[in-house]
Amino acid sequence: MDVFHYDSVKAQNVEMEGASKIKVRWLITKEMGAKNFAMRIFEIEPDGHTPLHKHPWEHEVFVLEGEGEFFDGEKATPFKFGDVVFVLPNELHQFRNSGRVLLRIICLIPYTKE
Amino acid sequence: MDVFHYDSVKAQNVEMEGASKIKVRWLITKEMGAKNFAMRIFEIEPDGHTPLHKHPWEHEVFVLEGEGEFFDGEKATPFKFGDVVFVLPNELHQFRNSGRVLLRIICLIPYTKE
Repeated sequence: MDVFHYDSVKAQNVEMEGASKIKVRWLITKEMGAKNFAMRIFEIEPDGHTPLHKHPWEHEVFVLEGEGEFFDGEKATPFKFGDVVFVLPNELHQFRNSGRVLLRIICLIPYTKE
Repeated sequence: MDVFHYDSVKAQNVEMEGASKIKVRWLITKEMGAKNFAMRIFEIEPDGHTPLHKHPWEHEVFVLEGEGEFFDGEKATPFKFGDVVFVLPNELHQFRNSGRVLLRIICLIPYTKE
């Protein structure tokens, strides 16, 4: 068992192509014994965003702070604290900060990425 | 893609033996297409708790609101908003509300429970 505050985990810049003003904290990982899925927090500054991309694995997301929108390549859907976002495998997706303060979301991915 | 507020999902009483004053909202499930893991919120009233039990699958937990403690059968470890709790497979565990307001935690489990 492990109990720790998320801010005790270092926030790293996300250097992916198409990512802007975004950091990630890897909270629960396979290195800690989590064999099935990983928990991360993404912190996106105002006007920042994740890449617009898709991949064969799903995202399970919970919005912790701030305001943003989910862009699927055509339509932007707003979200805020308390919202849940489920992204299916192979769906085009981008998370954007559309507010004036930091956007903080929990985002989980499976380790079984096939 | 699906975006919704967690309170749009019905909170159901948890009727397990050893559970007290606790409700669950199943937010992301296999019925929605989540094949690898499920996202739930547990809402525990003051003095309420989950069962003290263990099982062959892990928990990945994020504390959203309130104050509580993690009990491993011997020792109680306090937690609050922003804390992350990782429970390994087969670890004895209980989540307790030790505060005066509702305790709300996100708790994820794998569907690969072997």
